[in-house]
Amino acid sequence: MITTSEAGLAGVVAGQTALSTVGKKGFGLTYRGYSIEDLSEHASFEEVAWLLLHGELPMYEQLVTFSEELRHRRSLPDPLKQILETLPSTAHPMDVLRTGCSVLGCLEPEASAEQQYEIAMRLLSSFPSMLCYWHHFHHGGQRIEVETDDDSIAGHFLQLLHGHPAAEHLRRALDVSLILYAEHEFNASTFAARITASTRSDLYSAIVTGIGTLRGPLHGGANEASMDLIESYVNADAAEQGVIDRLAAKQKIMGFGHRVYKTVDPRSDVIKRWSHTLCDETALLTLYEISERIEAVMRREKGLFPNLDFYSATVFHCLGIPTTMFTPLFVFARTAGWSAHVFEQRSNNRLIRPAAEYNGPGPRAFVPINERA
Amino acid sequence: MITTSEAGLAGVVAGQTALSTVGKKGFGLTYRGYSIEDLSEHASFEEVAWLLLHGELPMYEQLVTFSEELRHRRSLPDPLKQILETLPSTAHPMDVLRTGCSVLGCLEPEASAEQQYEIAMRLLSSFPSMLCYWHHFHHGGQRIEVETDDDSIAGHFLQLLHGHPAAEHLRRALDVSLILYAEHEFNASTFAARITASTRSDLYSAIVTGIGTLRGPLHGGANEASMDLIESYVNADAAEQGVIDRLAAKQKIMGFGHRVYKTVDPRSDVIKRWSHTLCDETALLTLYEISERIEAVMRREKGLFPNLDFYSATVFHCLGIPTTMFTPLFVFARTAGWSAHVFEQRSNNRLIRPAAEYNGPGPRAFVPINERA
Ligand SMILES: CC(C)(COP(=O)(O)OP(=O)(O)OC[C@H]1O[C@@H](n2cnc3c(N)ncnc32)[C@H](O)[C@@H]1OP(=O)(O)O)[C@@H](O)C(=O)NCCC(=O)NCCS
Ligand SMILES: CC(C)(COP(=O)(O)OP(=O)(O)OC[C@H]1O[C@@H](n2cnc3c(N)ncnc32)[C@H](O)[C@@H]1OP(=O)(O)O)[C@@H](O)C(=O)NCCC(=O)NCCS
Repeated sequence: MITTSEAGLAGVVAGQTALSTVGKKGFGLTYRGYSIEDLSEHASFEEVAWLLLHGELPMYEQLVTFSEELRHRRSLPDPLKQILETLPSTAHPMDVLRTGCSVLGCLEPEASAEQQYEIAMRLLSSFPSMLCYWHHFHHGGQRIEVETDDDSIAGHFLQLLHGHPAAEHLRRALDVSLILYAEHEFNASTFAARITASTRSDLYSAIVTGIGTLRGPLHGGANEASMDLIESYVNADAAEQGVIDRLAAKQKIMGFGHRVYKTVDPRSDVIKRWSHTLCDETALLTLYEISERIEAVMRREKGLFPNLDFYSATVFHCLGIPTTMFTPLFVFARTAGWSAHVFEQRSNNRLIRPAAEYNGPGPRAFVPINERA
Repeated sequence: MITTSEAGLAGVVAGQTALSTVGKKGFGLTYRGYSIEDLSEHASFEEVAWLLLHGELPMYEQLVTFSEELRHRRSLPDPLKQILETLPSTAHPMDVLRTGCSVLGCLEPEASAEQQYEIAMRLLSSFPSMLCYWHHFHHGGQRIEVETDDDSIAGHFLQLLHGHPAAEHLRRALDVSLILYAEHEFNASTFAARITASTRSDLYSAIVTGIGTLRGPLHGGANEASMDLIESYVNADAAEQGVIDRLAAKQKIMGFGHRVYKTVDPRSDVIKRWSHTLCDETALLTLYEISERIEAVMRREKGLFPNLDFYSATVFHCLGIPTTMFTPLFVFARTAGWSAHVFEQRSNNRLIRPAAEYNGPGPRAFVPINERA
């Protein structure tokens, strides 16, 4: 029995992966060996998704076919549409996606693991459709057409959300964001999804686990919490004071810190540049200034640095995306990583079942209910 | 960094719990200090659920109030009924429960952790209603009334399923089974649910994770697989030959073995006696003989012993429960344990996020798509 006093399995190696390195010396963040800087500069999200699922970058024809296959999987079956209509307008979009994924698992179940690649594509393609169908039905009274001929998932989503194709650089901003969010080793949602897969459960169940786990503010939910925080201040000075007050009250500032990274999240630099560009162009520079000030205060007061979620918030905001859809965007992207991890887990599976240290009462004799006091 | 070569976190202590001991020396299986033998002999499932959620056995008045509160939470909101009607008749009941739980999380969300106890009761009470509503709508064309005045969850379920109250000893057989299934330390579904909770996600998400993880045949799904196996043989001799053939083909026999127990699952003795009694009484002794023979072969050939799932199969079968509802029964019971674990995780939370060992390609330079070969 290996005992660890580390709460939260911090630093405990729970298994192997060939998918990515998080803060590994001499690597930094890489997906299958390729640096996140290169991928976010030169690749598309579809290329990265293929890389994660297959292990290598696609050839040109492979990418064309893959994009086409994704495009053909955007429709939603009628019962799923009915269910999205039946869900309340007040639901959190993460709960909508969690439910939508679970429903699709009822309608198009994974009969055998041979279908796993198909299903991963299906989910990558249909999550934006689910979210936008539900959104427009409840918030605009419209049953939208969920198929577009946009080549990319980023463009497809923006077109469904706004009702018209997005300008190319805005589409690219979201595309880059999806690349940054696509994969991150044994983070909480991915590790939980691998546990689900380790019982030989189906891929939908594993993705549902991923969504429910990502939802929390200590994980994916941090991008929504970051936006709420940034928006709550009128300017940088107010933000400085506000954050100092929160820290004094022992509150966590979402969007800062990381379990593995200790000095910098390499993804933050990339998304911060986009945040600057987009805030500038949309006349929302105050939001960027507030963000930079919060960053400065957090470094000064706590030695903490922004993680990917912090500057992603203003990027999404400038793209006209409602705050409650920020964590769902994380889902669109991470579905690639979660799926690839399930494939990997399945390829060399052993049930993930740790031990626990007992800190409860010693053995005690049962007392019949009428004799209890 | 703590490195472990143990795949599947076998023997790795991942945290603390006061809920139960699994195979701990001098304890055996206890829930909050009470032995499983005592609880399954003297307590009701409701008493055990209270014990798990509160830490102590209830006083008489507390149990009366608790049972009443559970009774009042059996109804289903109309949108949930509509959605259950919209799910296909071919869905697996585990997928139905996973979806139903997710939908309830949209309709009656957990606004704050103060509601956690309420929600745990709500799920304990409404899962049998969800399953039976869906079942009768799709397999009998009926919109059933999901509220009964039966005192117990076991009785409520049997009455909803069969349309009439169950004989007392049959109700008690199911009650005992629910007690045995209620809690089991850091098993895969519970540990995954704790990871979901560790991001500060909501209780519904954690339970959805539990359901999706339990579903696999290496975990809760084993009781359905056991029944399929037992039923596939005409008699004990055929079973002997069949199991020997399967072992020769390197197949696992579901319902045998355990990650933590190495010689016996103490729950199996209890449920085996019920299996014998019920098979005898329903003239299904052949099924029991087949089961005993499989047990003997597994001991002889592999040194393996039956776990709780193996003899639970024939108990449920004798109660007239369709095989695809066996793992859902596990859900009804384990919702108590999952909820108690989420409460415990929340009371002293740290994000559960392990490390991984990288076994992928070294750093490589990005190659533009037209230059790949
Ligand atoms: C990501 C995170 C969960 C990592 O957690 P962890 O490895 O368990 O680290 P801890 O939460 O134990 O933090 C260590 C210390 O730094 C502090 N800290 C960490 N992140 C902090 C934050 N965002 N704001 C304020 N303090 C923070 C903790 O309070 C703790 O201080 P203490 O030692 O005085 O108690 C944590 O940094 C956090 O909660 N961040 C905010 C949520 C977030 O942005 N999540 C997205 C991650 S990509
Ligand atoms: C429960 C279980 C997952 C524990 O798994 P584990 O601790 O990872 O143990 P392993 O699967 O590595 O098994 C160890 C060895 O026993 C064998 N074994 C374990 N359970 C077996 C079973 N039910 N049938 C046949 N062989 C079995 C394994 O094949 C392995 O043999 P090997 O060393 O020759 O490869 C495993 O016993 C199992 O798969 N049982 C069947 C499913 C089941 O009943 N699950 C419900 C548990 S309550």
